[in-house]
Amino acid sequence: MEKRSVPKATLGRVPIYLRYLKELPKDSSPTISATKISRGVTLGEVQVRKDLAYISGSGKPRVGYERDKLIYDLENCLGSDSLTKAVLIGAGKLGRALLDFGGFEEFGIRIVAGFDCNDTALYIGNGKMVLPIREIETFCAEHDIKIGIITVGQGSAQEVCDKLVACGLKAIWSFAPCELSVPPTVLIRQEKLALSLAHLNSQIKNN
Amino acid sequence: MEKRSVPKATLGRVPIYLRYLKELPKDSSPTISATKISRGVTLGEVQVRKDLAYISGSGKPRVGYERDKLIYDLENCLGSDSLTKAVLIGAGKLGRALLDFGGFEEFGIRIVAGFDCNDTALYIGNGKMVLPIREIETFCAEHDIKIGIITVGQGSAQEVCDKLVACGLKAIWSFAPCELSVPPTVLIRQEKLALSLAHLNSQIKNN
Repeated sequence: MEKRSVPKATLGRVPIYLRYLKELPKDSSPTISATKISRGVTLGEVQVRKDLAYISGSGKPRVGYERDKLIYDLENCLGSDSLTKAVLIGAGKLGRALLDFGGFEEFGIRIVAGFDCNDTALYIGNGKMVLPIREIETFCAEHDIKIGIITVGQGSAQEVCDKLVACGLKAIWSFAPCELSVPPTVLIRQEKLALSLAHLNSQIKNN
Repeated sequence: MEKRSVPKATLGRVPIYLRYLKELPKDSSPTISATKISRGVTLGEVQVRKDLAYISGSGKPRVGYERDKLIYDLENCLGSDSLTKAVLIGAGKLGRALLDFGGFEEFGIRIVAGFDCNDTALYIGNGKMVLPIREIETFCAEHDIKIGIITVGQGSAQEVCDKLVACGLKAIWSFAPCELSVPPTVLIRQEKLALSLAHLNSQIKNN
């Protein structure tokens, strides 16, 4: 199947399908219909068919989907057959909250370490370390890191971003409250938390 | 001017305009052109005109905008003439990071207190308290709270959400990794952090 970018809403439902399919009894049929999946996950059948078409192609008429193939495709779509590894720079409160958050693994991503300007490695619990920033290049190369998460302040965000690009990372996820520049070969997503809240506030005011 | 919902991108530029206009010398002209603002903030003139039209109406031909009126309208749009007050429920790592974050005030919002299942009030620095959850109803009524921020886990998120609705709040901003239901009179915005990262990851994989 040709790879297409899966819509974010579909992606959000992938863990729901996976949980359902994996919890089916071992001795159940090797094929499953969209109707059965739709009932099992309590989502509309049209929705289910559309989602699965994105990820695994269409089911066969009167037969449905091969369950194991579907699980494989769903896991592959999330990358949870092989976790994508990420590092985080800036182990302040937000950084530590993200390092501590377990919910990323369900979507196939593991934040393997944090970095900050500490001089020696710092164990922060939950199996996570905060390492000295000078070690980041070696670390990224040795651990096949793909994503860099920026949780530093405005003052050093671009410098940190440039460093992550220099480490050869493929994508940057930034929480810094400023616009960052990356070369066109690097993906970037900039979270604007203050802006989300401001937008909600302006909606209240105009209600 | 009739109130319209200001686009999020425009809202994000409001602090930039405000900073520029407020830093103009006291003895500068009481009117200012879109061209001058556009140069001052290094944004395209068409963009500036469009943004300001949303917030303050059009400038007068050959004269431009009245500076003080423009500042007033920009502040009013953000609500920074009178801060909107928010409370946060769930003083874990993410909750404390948000309580500690100063960047919301620039957009006219102040998180005035956190709540959790502690028995007595807890000072967490930076002028912020975490109060016992049983005090939330009285607190919201006494402090004219408009927004509730949910940073608890999946297990108690809906219960907390119902409590905030019962407190009469106008909007909910949730970081809980599950869908929450609110009555149609309450605005809700649900941040899906894991999903943002998952989407970035799927884009890498399809690149």
